[in-house]
Amino acid sequence: MITSTTNPQPADFADVRATNLAVVLRFVREHAPCSRADIAASTGLNKATVSSLVADLIDRRLVRETGLTENRVGRPATMLVLDGSPYAAIGIEINVDYVTAVAVDLSGERLLSWRRSFSGAAGAPGSGTADVPGSRGSGTAEVPGAGGAAGPPGPSGPAGSVGQAVGTVAAIVRRVVGRMAKQERQVLGLTVGVPGLVGTDGTVLVAPNLGWRDADLAGDLAKALRDPGFPVQVDNDANLAALAEHRFGAQAGTADLVYLTGEIGVGAGVILDGRLRRGGRGYGGEIGHIQLDPLGPECRCGRTGCLEAVAGIGAVLRHAPLSPAEVEVELEEVVRLARAGDPETLALLSGVGRQLGKGVSVVTNLLNPQVVILGGYYVPLAPWLLPAVEEETRGRTIAPDGGGCRVVASTLGYDAAALGGAARVLDSVDSGRLPRVS
Amino acid sequence: MITSTTNPQPADFADVRATNLAVVLRFVREHAPCSRADIAASTGLNKATVSSLVADLIDRRLVRETGLTENRVGRPATMLVLDGSPYAAIGIEINVDYVTAVAVDLSGERLLSWRRSFSGAAGAPGSGTADVPGSRGSGTAEVPGAGGAAGPPGPSGPAGSVGQAVGTVAAIVRRVVGRMAKQERQVLGLTVGVPGLVGTDGTVLVAPNLGWRDADLAGDLAKALRDPGFPVQVDNDANLAALAEHRFGAQAGTADLVYLTGEIGVGAGVILDGRLRRGGRGYGGEIGHIQLDPLGPECRCGRTGCLEAVAGIGAVLRHAPLSPAEVEVELEEVVRLARAGDPETLALLSGVGRQLGKGVSVVTNLLNPQVVILGGYYVPLAPWLLPAVEEETRGRTIAPDGGGCRVVASTLGYDAAALGGAARVLDSVDSGRLPRVS
Repeated sequence: MITSTTNPQPADFADVRATNLAVVLRFVREHAPCSRADIAASTGLNKATVSSLVADLIDRRLVRETGLTENRVGRPATMLVLDGSPYAAIGIEINVDYVTAVAVDLSGERLLSWRRSFSGAAGAPGSGTADVPGSRGSGTAEVPGAGGAAGPPGPSGPAGSVGQAVGTVAAIVRRVVGRMAKQERQVLGLTVGVPGLVGTDGTVLVAPNLGWRDADLAGDLAKALRDPGFPVQVDNDANLAALAEHRFGAQAGTADLVYLTGEIGVGAGVILDGRLRRGGRGYGGEIGHIQLDPLGPECRCGRTGCLEAVAGIGAVLRHAPLSPAEVEVELEEVVRLARAGDPETLALLSGVGRQLGKGVSVVTNLLNPQVVILGGYYVPLAPWLLPAVEEETRGRTIAPDGGGCRVVASTLGYDAAALGGAARVLDSVDSGRLPRVS
Repeated sequence: MITSTTNPQPADFADVRATNLAVVLRFVREHAPCSRADIAASTGLNKATVSSLVADLIDRRLVRETGLTENRVGRPATMLVLDGSPYAAIGIEINVDYVTAVAVDLSGERLLSWRRSFSGAAGAPGSGTADVPGSRGSGTAEVPGAGGAAGPPGPSGPAGSVGQAVGTVAAIVRRVVGRMAKQERQVLGLTVGVPGLVGTDGTVLVAPNLGWRDADLAGDLAKALRDPGFPVQVDNDANLAALAEHRFGAQAGTADLVYLTGEIGVGAGVILDGRLRRGGRGYGGEIGHIQLDPLGPECRCGRTGCLEAVAGIGAVLRHAPLSPAEVEVELEEVVRLARAGDPETLALLSGVGRQLGKGVSVVTNLLNPQVVILGGYYVPLAPWLLPAVEEETRGRTIAPDGGGCRVVASTLGYDAAALGGAARVLDSVDSGRLPRVS
């Protein structure tokens, strides 16, 4: 089966059976428990085809029969449900000072969630720090030596830095895979999120805060894992967070959704018509360096008045740049003051909210999403930011009522990007990349 | 058949046969002449199914056999090509002072192209001019009475204004349909482009320069045409121009493409992953009122420093506001001065180009398209605007080399939106809305 929103490209002419399997699988997830007749009626596939597809999905242990039958006139029908038990999808987020790992089953149940400290920050200026500063993503602090003081210095240059990350991530993945093996689960795939520009082929063009450039992280990881038997993919962290919101978040299923990371850097993940839109080379979502005010403060990127300079978390804190740990401490103090009604703090947050609203209005005018989700450090500040964000967004959007767009805080916490990595693996299954019969 | 980029929504579970027919039809358009075996091999559909689908397409006169056979080992195969001759798609653009109509056949051949003057401008302030000013689209001049002097004044209020347009357009459509009937062509559908906010259901929420609000133009037109027997749709003119570029333009087939209208108003049509992205309610593409400079000149919308205030055609001309006819006269003078190397004119165009580049960089950072196409009045000015646009875009885009985005002038001329109306009809056919067997 089929979508009527297909565009006429050769890629469309894919393997029909694989796609029909995926269609039936999706139908079962959305409508379980359901019968083979239900599937045939709703998909337009004929009953013999549906029976054959369902048999295949049962062989692959993706779907199982419940034994229950539907209560209706005529011959009783065996009901089908998703069989999540034999599989797991893994998502990893690499950031400047930590690595997060999650695993979920086919239905999205969380199987594990780990965080491990990691000294991945780019070294002192000159030691391989890429020269495209300030790319989106959770680009926490470009402080010389941030995080690096406690960790091993690592070889100079990007390659060394990547090598260190590959070793750390591979070790974590091996532990996750081991844990899954104990549960007799097969790993369907792994997606790693990185704060930087990631091409459509998965190459990390540049990750400024990690000091990486032109890194084939997926290839290196697959090698380190000695051909793990599952696909390894790499993506931008804001993209993955958007996928996580679209599949697991409070706004799950919203067709037009934009996620904004709230860190020292600000990045966007753009979902339109139900799918992530990366742009031609995969470098979309770089909202952080859209100039909101030519006379505004200087940005890390060397320009002035960029969104992240006037509305990133750095605009909220008194002392910048800071290490991520220091950011969290100072953020708690800001929240405490706001709760206590400190007028200066409230005015500051309202001002940052207005600037952020100006940035959000770029999105509402250009893309008209149904919802914009604020993530990262914006979440604890949301009670004080949101009123100003919403007022400014409405005032600056040509369509009445902000084009119907709501602005909300993420409910996924700091795991969002890692969860999105797992979501991307599940999306692959939905698109027809099914596990082989074991 | 199928795409592997389907998203899991109930809408996917459409009629399989209709979609498979469309898949075969698209394959024939892209690969003609081709055999049934070629189709089966590439689509994964089995040969019996392909034979049945092709027979259906031949019955519908969408595909025909050439009589030629492929030169190869084994049984000779009859070759198939598109049969465009029995059909036509109609596109109409309504603007402040003219209505444009085009008709094309199934393969996109232009069958006719008409332009007719039309006094559709909103009346004097207060006579029904909608209060959401400056929506994107070819919003040429909000001059009180522009064009209205020569035309009938029309009843006061939006309804009257819409009624006048419906009468004019219906008359034109009847003539086009008559012409097509003489060629024994069946009309597959009609799409009307309007400069304003058009909802996903086709309702014109507001078209400021026409003075319309909440207009059911499609419904009114269908009534005026007394149930014409083909679908009537309405869309934003920038959206349609983007569709025209995607199907007929020099950049046809580019998956990620943004079209910018260059009029007094500036609007965008956004194509990502091969399809128009309208946003949740259809109000995306409103790039004209993104603020580029808070201290910039006042905009028609009441804010300051909007893209269209600093980089719309009004920023190039000395006298504003002007009627569209006056704009063209003054534009010719600007082109003449630029050609003559007049320093003041060159500096002016370079400055406008820089501002426009700033706006384009919002698009390249957020969406990373492969190409941005400048339309409307930007086209004659392109030789002088483009260098500054490109330099500014590159300088402001975080991804190196502007993310690979080229900025080019449209080659479709002033017919772009009307052509896009016809393109949208052909897109419907591609998506499975095939003509019935007559």
